[in-house]
Amino acid sequence: MAGGNRTIAVQPIGHVEGGRIVPEDDGWDASRAVIALDTERFTPASLRGLDEFSHVEVVFVFDQVAEAEVTTGARRPRGRTDWPEVGIFAQRGRNRPNRLGVSTCRLVSVRGLRLEVQGLDAVHGTPVLDVKPVMRGFLPRGALREPAWAAEIMARYWND
Amino acid sequence: MAGGNRTIAVQPIGHVEGGRIVPEDDGWDASRAVIALDTERFTPASLRGLDEFSHVEVVFVFDQVAEAEVTTGARRPRGRTDWPEVGIFAQRGRNRPNRLGVSTCRLVSVRGLRLEVQGLDAVHGTPVLDVKPVMRGFLPRGALREPAWAAEIMARYWND
Repeated sequence: MAGGNRTIAVQPIGHVEGGRIVPEDDGWDASRAVIALDTERFTPASLRGLDEFSHVEVVFVFDQVAEAEVTTGARRPRGRTDWPEVGIFAQRGRNRPNRLGVSTCRLVSVRGLRLEVQGLDAVHGTPVLDVKPVMRGFLPRGALREPAWAAEIMARYWND
Repeated sequence: MAGGNRTIAVQPIGHVEGGRIVPEDDGWDASRAVIALDTERFTPASLRGLDEFSHVEVVFVFDQVAEAEVTTGARRPRGRTDWPEVGIFAQRGRNRPNRLGVSTCRLVSVRGLRLEVQGLDAVHGTPVLDVKPVMRGFLPRGALREPAWAAEIMARYWND
């Protein structure tokens, strides 16, 4: 296979501070937290101009998920028997290979190396691997189609 | 700092096959490629139900970027002097810490462990770390705001 399957090392650029301590299923939009960048490697220049964007996309690691809990096959989202058993790459659950989360939230403020955000569904202490500005041009192109369970699972996710 | 800055190991779940050989700035929507999952770790169950979604979000590594090319401060997007110098986390350029790309593209088909996609802005051989279904509920909540250069840079990005 092109490129092989060699392990790749990544290093957190910072961590989530504040917000929720324990992961919960719903009501994340009420959560306000700070993404604190690593002060040894970064400077305010790393974030220059980010405050011109209303939203950021955050790539983080679900580090509370143990390796043994990672699913490679299919499972029911949240274990709900009324939802279909779907592959781990057909859902956004935490117990996934590489344990990566990608989430869009509102950017409240940027102060030095600290980004205040609203509605980030990651708990206190979560390692952050990247922050990207949300650009309109990177939203999905063309009509979006999703199964019924995907809308049901999101019904109370942000606003409980 | 909570959690420390320990290195985290990730392993590609698969690779991009086909599409472009050389990274280019624009016209990515014409690019059709396959994401081929690692046949040793995954089975078709890993992708069960994904075909009910029209779009996928792909997390990948810009592995052609050398460590020495990574920027931690500010730079002009694409080196263009008519665009402002902004922090690496205020742009989506390749030369970023951890070299992670996150991109949304159309899902054309799922066959076994092969996902055919359209408009993925990653070249042949790119290591893929995750595939997530695009759910309407994970799109940005609230009005989107972005600076003028962000719209300009995207003007020909998908359709050249």
